[in-house]
Amino acid sequence: MKAEIIAIGTELLLGHIVNTNAAFLSQKLAEIGIDVYYQTTVGDNPGRLEEAIKKAAARSDIVITSGGLGPTVDDITIETIARLIKRKGVKWIRNNVGTAPGLITEYIGKTLIALPGPPREIEPMFEKDIIPYLKRLSGAKVSMISRSIKTTGLAESQVNGLVKDLLALKPPTTVGIYAKLGQVELKIMSKANDKAAARRSIAKIERKIRLKLKDRIFGYDDETLESAVGKILSKKRLTIATAESCTGGLLAHRITNISGSSDYFLMGLITYSNAAKIDILGVPEILIKDFGAVSEPVALAMADRIRIKAGSDIGVGITGIAGPTGGTKKKPMGLVYIALAAKNKKVVRELRFKGSREEVKFQASQIALDMIRRNI
Amino acid sequence: MKAEIIAIGTELLLGHIVNTNAAFLSQKLAEIGIDVYYQTTVGDNPGRLEEAIKKAAARSDIVITSGGLGPTVDDITIETIARLIKRKGVKWIRNNVGTAPGLITEYIGKTLIALPGPPREIEPMFEKDIIPYLKRLSGAKVSMISRSIKTTGLAESQVNGLVKDLLALKPPTTVGIYAKLGQVELKIMSKANDKAAARRSIAKIERKIRLKLKDRIFGYDDETLESAVGKILSKKRLTIATAESCTGGLLAHRITNISGSSDYFLMGLITYSNAAKIDILGVPEILIKDFGAVSEPVALAMADRIRIKAGSDIGVGITGIAGPTGGTKKKPMGLVYIALAAKNKKVVRELRFKGSREEVKFQASQIALDMIRRNI
Repeated sequence: MKAEIIAIGTELLLGHIVNTNAAFLSQKLAEIGIDVYYQTTVGDNPGRLEEAIKKAAARSDIVITSGGLGPTVDDITIETIARLIKRKGVKWIRNNVGTAPGLITEYIGKTLIALPGPPREIEPMFEKDIIPYLKRLSGAKVSMISRSIKTTGLAESQVNGLVKDLLALKPPTTVGIYAKLGQVELKIMSKANDKAAARRSIAKIERKIRLKLKDRIFGYDDETLESAVGKILSKKRLTIATAESCTGGLLAHRITNISGSSDYFLMGLITYSNAAKIDILGVPEILIKDFGAVSEPVALAMADRIRIKAGSDIGVGITGIAGPTGGTKKKPMGLVYIALAAKNKKVVRELRFKGSREEVKFQASQIALDMIRRNI
Repeated sequence: MKAEIIAIGTELLLGHIVNTNAAFLSQKLAEIGIDVYYQTTVGDNPGRLEEAIKKAAARSDIVITSGGLGPTVDDITIETIARLIKRKGVKWIRNNVGTAPGLITEYIGKTLIALPGPPREIEPMFEKDIIPYLKRLSGAKVSMISRSIKTTGLAESQVNGLVKDLLALKPPTTVGIYAKLGQVELKIMSKANDKAAARRSIAKIERKIRLKLKDRIFGYDDETLESAVGKILSKKRLTIATAESCTGGLLAHRITNISGSSDYFLMGLITYSNAAKIDILGVPEILIKDFGAVSEPVALAMADRIRIKAGSDIGVGITGIAGPTGGTKKKPMGLVYIALAAKNKKVVRELRFKGSREEVKFQASQIALDMIRRNI
């Protein structure tokens, strides 16, 4: 079965909001084996919406609209659909979050589904009511199973080079590559009548990828680098504390995004000023004088001091220049030192990041989390 | 002039990535007075792309595609366009970030522009080369001017109620309302031949909105709550320090996202454990014993102690239950106390947030920033 998605809203055409519904709906449809060939966005204009629905219904089995269901004059979906379907029956779908219900009806023999626009309304409604409906409708024996493999520490081109042959695979089982800042993911997808066969075929490719990417892989599917680190710390019953300068609390924020992190995260200190580094954290003043606040010895001292201060097994220290100002020729913007201290181990790395202030902060937190993961 | 946007990529139809280019291009086109009536997404399929370009060119003056320009077999845009335009001339657009150049050509008398897919490639190319080109093409006298007014502390329905009459305004000058977590924005847009006239008409509406929303407004256009707070702290030459429990460093992270924050942010402490609250921060143990770690007196003591420890003008203390676990009947998940301490002033608020762990953290940081803004 083929489906098509029509997003409705002038605010989308003005670029005031990003259409996240199209990605959400497409992904969920793919999971139950329904292909999406087109996504279209139209404004709050009955004529253009009518034309878009007609076109979509002519070439697809299922048409799903999002938006335009509310009570204001801009909300044109219901009247447009009413005009198209004349007096045919409509199945209303309860909205547990907002006020406007969704609906399922039929148009020229095709299934027409209208859903609300706000993500927090459409997402639970789609999961709870529409997916089961579409599964019954399509007799969904074919389904899409996927597996994400997440890496950090390698550039997209490096991952690409390592798994080139797998990226060229043809359906039913394919591999895609997706790069984000400081992270590259491989997604194995398999479309099959037989779920067990699809899982076997995914497992086979996953083994190949693991052999190639080894310990660059930090997690799978919904795992994040911070959840992977949390899992290891919990399992090994280790505690951690952080001393951050240029990342300004981002590392602690990411660690504490994980539920249960209070079991292993003892404390964080953000020493933005030299005075705080010396007086509160206890970094020897002479180190800052001799090497500068942004230096290997200071990062190491920060990691060591916070470990002792917090009484934790592991201490992390980060010092650098997030930019856009503050850089010099010798110590340019993006220069960051990250250190990890444990009882019998000390590691420090010098990094040179590119990008905006927030991008430098994020990349530094990413490397710090990866250093924790790889050193405990 | 009317434009249409076609995004190309099977990864979009699978929902693996969100189409942010459509919003970016639409917003930029609106700013130079070019209307967008349709956004379409098609996969890496030459037949369907060809059909989409034909359809778009038939009803619009400008067709802009994004994606599919790379060197792999999936990249079908160039070959498809070549087939459509036959031997017509092509103006290549240099890509300063990635490898694939963009192009401008003509198809059935309409302007056809093909741009790369990655946001970090398409955005600078569009700003640098395509906007000037389109301005010349459209003779762009009409342009869209906009002004965003940002508020926090009021729900969308409250803001809606206060400016209802303005939200009903008809073109050329209109007002839109956009709600995000902990923040509601009003966007005034004016389309006019005469920029000065458009600016006057926006200024008039802005004055009305300011009268209604008063100090709930924290900033305009690109300002954020953290940049607004930074501006006030810089101007008043005040310094700040933070003691966070449930927000886990997010408040410090947001404050330090602002370039120049090292002038006013002295230090942050993340005291996740009671031991850290008592031993490192110096919160009296008896307060935690008598009232619990999540309580008004502990939030106040945290704010006061960090202010003294850092030697800052202002101290902020946050303690709460971010969830999803750790809540009790008396102290449920989402309960957060936020305190602000200055030399002659102490303020504390009790909040009850809904949402995920990260949403609770974000909302708490939002209120804390707003308390700083409103109390200094």
